Amino acid sequence: MKVKRSQRLIDMTRYLMEHPHTLIPLPFFVHRYESAKSSISEDITILKRTFSENGMGTLKTIPGAAGGSIFIPSIQYDEASGFINKMKTELNDSSRYISGGYLYMTDILSHPSVVRNVGRIIISQYVNQKIDYVMTMATGGISIAEMVASYLNVPFVVARHESKITDGSTINVNYISGSSDRINRMVLSKRSLPPKSNVLIVDDYMKGGGTISGLAALIKEFDCHLAGVSVFAEDNYNGKRAFDFDYTSLIKVNIDQKHINVSDGNYVQNIFNQ
Amino acid sequence: MKVKRSQRLIDMTRYLMEHPHTLIPLPFFVHRYESAKSSISEDITILKRTFSENGMGTLKTIPGAAGGSIFIPSIQYDEASGFINKMKTELNDSSRYISGGYLYMTDILSHPSVVRNVGRIIISQYVNQKIDYVMTMATGGISIAEMVASYLNVPFVVARHESKITDGSTINVNYISGSSDRINRMVLSKRSLPPKSNVLIVDDYMKGGGTISGLAALIKEFDCHLAGVSVFAEDNYNGKRAFDFDYTSLIKVNIDQKHINVSDGNYVQNIFNQ
Repeated sequence: MKVKRSQRLIDMTRYLMEHPHTLIPLPFFVHRYESAKSSISEDITILKRTFSENGMGTLKTIPGAAGGSIFIPSIQYDEASGFINKMKTELNDSSRYISGGYLYMTDILSHPSVVRNVGRIIISQYVNQKIDYVMTMATGGISIAEMVASYLNVPFVVARHESKITDGSTINVNYISGSSDRINRMVLSKRSLPPKSNVLIVDDYMKGGGTISGLAALIKEFDCHLAGVSVFAEDNYNGKRAFDFDYTSLIKVNIDQKHINVSDGNYVQNIFNQ
Repeated sequence: MKVKRSQRLIDMTRYLMEHPHTLIPLPFFVHRYESAKSSISEDITILKRTFSENGMGTLKTIPGAAGGSIFIPSIQYDEASGFINKMKTELNDSSRYISGGYLYMTDILSHPSVVRNVGRIIISQYVNQKIDYVMTMATGGISIAEMVASYLNVPFVVARHESKITDGSTINVNYISGSSDRINRMVLSKRSLPPKSNVLIVDDYMKGGGTISGLAALIKEFDCHLAGVSVFAEDNYNGKRAFDFDYTSLIKVNIDQKHINVSDGNYVQNIFNQ
């Protein structure tokens, strides 16, 4: 049975949102809705304009026999900075201080609505880059890694301090925690990451950068390529960071004598400098 | 500027998908699109019918001044069983055998498209229940917990074997791993779960049920209520399970002398018995 335009647009929106970064050939929709090619083409034009206007992202259309449409999610700067300001307000709260000079933010990163926005902001920085895998360290970064992977429609891999029996054989690296000078180990299942993959590192919090440099070493060991590094929060760290490549952060946390001050991360500055 | 119906339907679909289980008052959309109340009401009717027909879930409408619409995602049985069959085929592969009698499935649960379907199947079993939190054990269950939490629009909490410094104070329970008779510890940050919450436990794999019974003990310690237990895979375990409450599983794994056999979990049987 032929499907009406209104119903097609609803279903196409849903389908594209659930299949980002995937080329959907025009005939797929033609067949799905038993509608004429010309009608589907018009639908795509409407979707393209609306996705762009409401800031969801870009609906790229590729002409030709092998063509189709690809939804590339992103976020507009206004929405991103509104979200970052909200995070700053929520985290600037002395009751979040944890002895030892840490900030409690697990609750924030347990809210899917928050992680969704973190994910959208991170992926919007890599719209023109090929990313095959998202990588993080257990356990703090997993929720961000999964959401970023979900928007990019690629798998995510999780390094751990200890291997699990279900990992099978693993590749291990030792790294020095930048902020505490302790030696840590990081393991990743050998099966989890094919060589030559482009890997985006994400994490919840970065202090000295030891974890990030460990993950980067792991990427090298797997004969893969580092595509970028994005963290939710970076510490206003005074020492020398354990790595020297670029990274982006959404917020910057300064903890001085139990006093918490949260400011913009370099993501905001980078946008302004563009 | 007034927004056209086609654009409204696209944006409303997106908005509702990003805000499941949230009451959206009619005036919110009226204002957002500068459109007449009657037009928005018609939009809602179209969305309601389409969501139901394409198996996305239910768009509930609540009349009256305090009313509005709530999107409750779910999955239709055909789509769910198609997905479960695909999982069975993919996991029925002797190269997935890991010495010690384990099944390698980390790669499967690292694909957002897979976890999305696991999430939709799990939440469709709890559409009429109040769930405030989703709980799991680090690290295998985190990706499922986040996706389930995302569809329910509630936070998720992660118990660990060891506390992290950023947890602050924790509540700990000891539990016996059902399959290996070892005593393990499970910790959860005190701040992470308010009393009286209704908590849904999810996990990737269940063998003897020790982890599940530990999580249930933790729920009790926090003065909360167990709302349900759902796992992706259960082992075809011969011994007595460490808990005696109901659970659901999507698939059942039988490993006999390096031979792997994956069959339907009790979710499929429960649906047929309804």
